[in-house]
Amino acid sequence: MHIRLSDPIVGRIAVTDGISEEALLMLRDAGHEIELKHFETSELNEGILSNFDAVVVRSATMMTGDVIRASVSEEGGIKFIGRAGVGVDNIDVEVATELGVVVCNTPGSSTRSVVELTIGHLIASTRNIPRADRTLRNGEWAKATLKGTEIGGKRLGLIGFGKIARGVANIASSMGMEIHAYDPYVDADIIDSAVYTMHNDIDEIFRICTHISIHCNLSDETRHLVNSRRLSLMGGIGADGTECGNHLVSCARGGIIDETAAFDALHSGQLSSLALDVFETEPVDDCPLLHHENFHGTPHIAASTIEAQSRISREITVQLLEFFEGERPSSALN
Amino acid sequence: MHIRLSDPIVGRIAVTDGISEEALLMLRDAGHEIELKHFETSELNEGILSNFDAVVVRSATMMTGDVIRASVSEEGGIKFIGRAGVGVDNIDVEVATELGVVVCNTPGSSTRSVVELTIGHLIASTRNIPRADRTLRNGEWAKATLKGTEIGGKRLGLIGFGKIARGVANIASSMGMEIHAYDPYVDADIIDSAVYTMHNDIDEIFRICTHISIHCNLSDETRHLVNSRRLSLMGGIGADGTECGNHLVSCARGGIIDETAAFDALHSGQLSSLALDVFETEPVDDCPLLHHENFHGTPHIAASTIEAQSRISREITVQLLEFFEGERPSSALN
Repeated sequence: MHIRLSDPIVGRIAVTDGISEEALLMLRDAGHEIELKHFETSELNEGILSNFDAVVVRSATMMTGDVIRASVSEEGGIKFIGRAGVGVDNIDVEVATELGVVVCNTPGSSTRSVVELTIGHLIASTRNIPRADRTLRNGEWAKATLKGTEIGGKRLGLIGFGKIARGVANIASSMGMEIHAYDPYVDADIIDSAVYTMHNDIDEIFRICTHISIHCNLSDETRHLVNSRRLSLMGGIGADGTECGNHLVSCARGGIIDETAAFDALHSGQLSSLALDVFETEPVDDCPLLHHENFHGTPHIAASTIEAQSRISREITVQLLEFFEGERPSSALN
Repeated sequence: MHIRLSDPIVGRIAVTDGISEEALLMLRDAGHEIELKHFETSELNEGILSNFDAVVVRSATMMTGDVIRASVSEEGGIKFIGRAGVGVDNIDVEVATELGVVVCNTPGSSTRSVVELTIGHLIASTRNIPRADRTLRNGEWAKATLKGTEIGGKRLGLIGFGKIARGVANIASSMGMEIHAYDPYVDADIIDSAVYTMHNDIDEIFRICTHISIHCNLSDETRHLVNSRRLSLMGGIGADGTECGNHLVSCARGGIIDETAAFDALHSGQLSSLALDVFETEPVDDCPLLHHENFHGTPHIAASTIEAQSRISREITVQLLEFFEGERPSSALN
């Protein structure tokens, strides 16, 4: 990489899952040709992207190894995959690397939005907000049956301890929670131990925490990381002695929590609440969780804020402009 | 007050809106006779409480001037009204004072619970959590129409700046909000101006803030304090330039917000969201707000947590024991 062409080149860019107006203008101003269109899987597999120099996706377009191979032709094809967002589990980065295709994401752009939704989901769970609203709309005044618990004085376990989890930790700590985290990819020594306790054993998080929030990537290693056995370790008694039950939140990726195990735990009462922004199958189909009164969910909207989308569009645009200027994009993953 | 009897006396205590088992045990252990029963308004007006030495209420029992007068007889009657909770708008403190009846509440016991619910309602509003859950349960995947906004970078206006509002301010500030407050009963000089800006003009709060949370008492002065005119002052553009709309939350008391004005503002789009734990009429009857998709509510559950109820019961018990020991209860309001 680090190639510097004598003249900036312009290219054909496919934007398959949308981008902001502002970003479109910036790219077009720089002379690029933008095609704003969602393609079917069959079109992707047949190599429709080989007509482009770069593609910008969100999470809806699956850039599998086969799709990437079909997108690269002898005459050219894509040299850049931009993920407008954070998670690249819909992109086969290994195949892209083999074929010399740069993959970029926008790692910090949605952090604040995801942090806020996580805190919102946590309190919505412990205070029964969606259920309370549902009963009000049904004409019931369910005050007597909607007793909640405080998050202050409880232990919050964070599975994965990157930027988002640390943001959640700082706010939860300011709300009086005790923070415990597990992340084998983070060096415990660099963490400020005044606010967080890092653990080497994920099971320990489940044993000592009554509130757990998921913040890792989806990978073969993390698929069904939250399973029946681990859920059964949760004790349901807060660090302050309150019988607060067990609460689980995920705004990370569907598939990390085994939804069948989570449903069973809700059903048995082992989980007092479950709040999900992400699901094993999206869009959600006939997921039994949706009928449980102690579940509530949102349709993968953790980064769906005006602010995050604006930052994402600006950041991916900067990456594209850097790439076409012959620079190595600052958020290149390969 | 400050009377010290030679021997502690025991008394008959009516508990009309419930109390914890733990508190009951403590009071009975001290020799008091407890009647745990909710009375009808007609019974209260006919003086049924004159058979007791003290009464402990929550918000459901209306201790009007007439009820208090009827509760005091020549032979005795109540000498103590304990409010298990914070707001005493259901107690005519003036009449109680005239008749020499001590009124106590438990001012700090539910602070943390109310603070947490306020933050929860704020994020549930800006991220459409109850609406999102409703669409999921209806089988819709409404990701595209549920774009929210961040609270970080916005101005939060707090009407009333007591303990609860300050708790909200500290957390909201840690989440990146800029805090503005109005409270004519708080000395601006004693407030840490690094975190909060105090204003002398309530209208200024509405002019500069996109997010407003109510934390004052209900009184003749505060009834319909939030009206059409003030709501129309809100600008809808965040301090960070985001078109975030206007958001209003109240976990204080019904009646401070003019619900008809709030409904009109939701209907016109002047308010993007409204979240209420308290209503002009409780239990809520056929309030039109309940049918608006940008409203969500909870049935007066801000203090309905295991922790707050336990603290409330313990604190009111301590006040009662102090009173019957001949001491001035530490939280006496008159």
